Amino acid sequence: MKRRTAIALSLAAASFGLSPELIAAAPALAPAEIVAAAPASAWRPVAPENLLLMEMGDGRRVAIELAPAFAPVHVANVVALTRGKWFDGNAIVRVQDNYVTQWGGADPKRARPAGLVEKPPEEYARPASGLALRRLPFADPYAPMTGHADGWPVGSDGTLAWLTHCYGMVGVGRDMPPDAGDSTELYVVIGQSPRQLDRNIALVGRVVGGMDVLSSLPRGTGDIGFYTDPKQNVPIRRAWIAADMPAAERPRYEVMRTDSPTFAAFAEARANRRDAFYIRPAGGVDVCNVPVPTRKAG
Amino acid sequence: MKRRTAIALSLAAASFGLSPELIAAAPALAPAEIVAAAPASAWRPVAPENLLLMEMGDGRRVAIELAPAFAPVHVANVVALTRGKWFDGNAIVRVQDNYVTQWGGADPKRARPAGLVEKPPEEYARPASGLALRRLPFADPYAPMTGHADGWPVGSDGTLAWLTHCYGMVGVGRDMPPDAGDSTELYVVIGQSPRQLDRNIALVGRVVGGMDVLSSLPRGTGDIGFYTDPKQNVPIRRAWIAADMPAAERPRYEVMRTDSPTFAAFAEARANRRDAFYIRPAGGVDVCNVPVPTRKAG
Repeated sequence: MKRRTAIALSLAAASFGLSPELIAAAPALAPAEIVAAAPASAWRPVAPENLLLMEMGDGRRVAIELAPAFAPVHVANVVALTRGKWFDGNAIVRVQDNYVTQWGGADPKRARPAGLVEKPPEEYARPASGLALRRLPFADPYAPMTGHADGWPVGSDGTLAWLTHCYGMVGVGRDMPPDAGDSTELYVVIGQSPRQLDRNIALVGRVVGGMDVLSSLPRGTGDIGFYTDPKQNVPIRRAWIAADMPAAERPRYEVMRTDSPTFAAFAEARANRRDAFYIRPAGGVDVCNVPVPTRKAG
Repeated sequence: MKRRTAIALSLAAASFGLSPELIAAAPALAPAEIVAAAPASAWRPVAPENLLLMEMGDGRRVAIELAPAFAPVHVANVVALTRGKWFDGNAIVRVQDNYVTQWGGADPKRARPAGLVEKPPEEYARPASGLALRRLPFADPYAPMTGHADGWPVGSDGTLAWLTHCYGMVGVGRDMPPDAGDSTELYVVIGQSPRQLDRNIALVGRVVGGMDVLSSLPRGTGDIGFYTDPKQNVPIRRAWIAADMPAAERPRYEVMRTDSPTFAAFAEARANRRDAFYIRPAGGVDVCNVPVPTRKAG
């Protein structure tokens, strides 16, 4: 078993672009220690125009990085809806355990803002070209290959690439196909990654702050986790785009650069835990179990 | 893409023991519909001696099926601790987002009951022989093979078999190796499956009722999710084993038989969603994304 582990380590290290000698010489850092020691160059900022902020009724805040490179029309709709105050005074209406928390559908009589694309295309995948995928060297049951690109978890078949439904990813609720959703209702993954949704629904971003606000809500007792009484709805006071604030007042978030040596070491350590608590490194890891580190800056 | 999907379906159907003709002829049921239509023969009871019940301070209840076939000494310790009232008046002390909820460590000065094995062996895997594994025909990044046996999610290398850290699985907290934990502190997985813990820690069961009680608690703000003030602890009023109640008063839980045709159809449908909402069946699924159905009976 020890021998098998050593072989797996060597293969994994080579695939990660790290020499086995480097791995062997490195102290056995836990992934969190690698993140804590990351140099400034390992981080990229979240662009203010891609930073969606929500303030809940109790004052707690959620920060979401939008992903226009993967779902440009759906993301543009999120921005238009936010600027049109669609989410202000709206609410979380559904919390299904081990699945999703969903918001934006509290008041269907509210007017959609001008500029909304009413029937967006199916932005469920994009061309793989133009995307620098750092591939994870492990088998995945859902996609021919997985990895990370520009700070996002990605699946790909070499021709197309798509965001994967990992914990904290934000998507657009939709009705039966061909409806692709107009971004008025959004959800976030709060449990085991529901990867069956990959390529079946548009992902538009991921939570970078305040995930606990969305994950620890009471589960709805109605069908598929809907709250059964509007009084159970969790109010959203307001939502806005960081770029619309004065620059000095904007909260700043950062995402680890997935093309950095630090992220390579982090992903390798997630696959092969050698810190003191562990006895048997797994020799592999799921793309959703390599959560891209994010942090609030300043 | 359609063609690739059709081939994947045929392979998967054959591997699941279902003919492609049967799959093609079957209505495209959602997994939940397959569970709802399951015959009585598709379910097995949870044995009262393996049913751990907990009542929280607010009266809500949690039910856990113990797994003595995988970790007999650790499970015997859980039973001895429960009968010795270790958990009565104890508390949940740690909730780490996307990881675990942990309890039993609120009062380390409490006396351990007689009969406790103070230093259990490392029950992190067991012989694969004697276990009828229904294998999932998909690659897994953590284990040479995965599947289900007697209602449990399992990883195996053909020689050994082990429970996998899926959502709702319950394990034994431990200190640094060689400590294997004495079952005084237990945790439940509340996020993406932390499969790196497989074969590194003893799993002793899984939640079969009241999972939302454990998953929706406020996240701790201390290191690795510990509550920072004992006032934040979530009280456990009492815990007991169902077998110790009068037979007529015992709650009864059931688990889907993972060797049943119904479970085969359920697992296949989890891998290849063909119900109306889906456009592209994934053609594969992770063992932790085939959650074994459980229900309260009677």
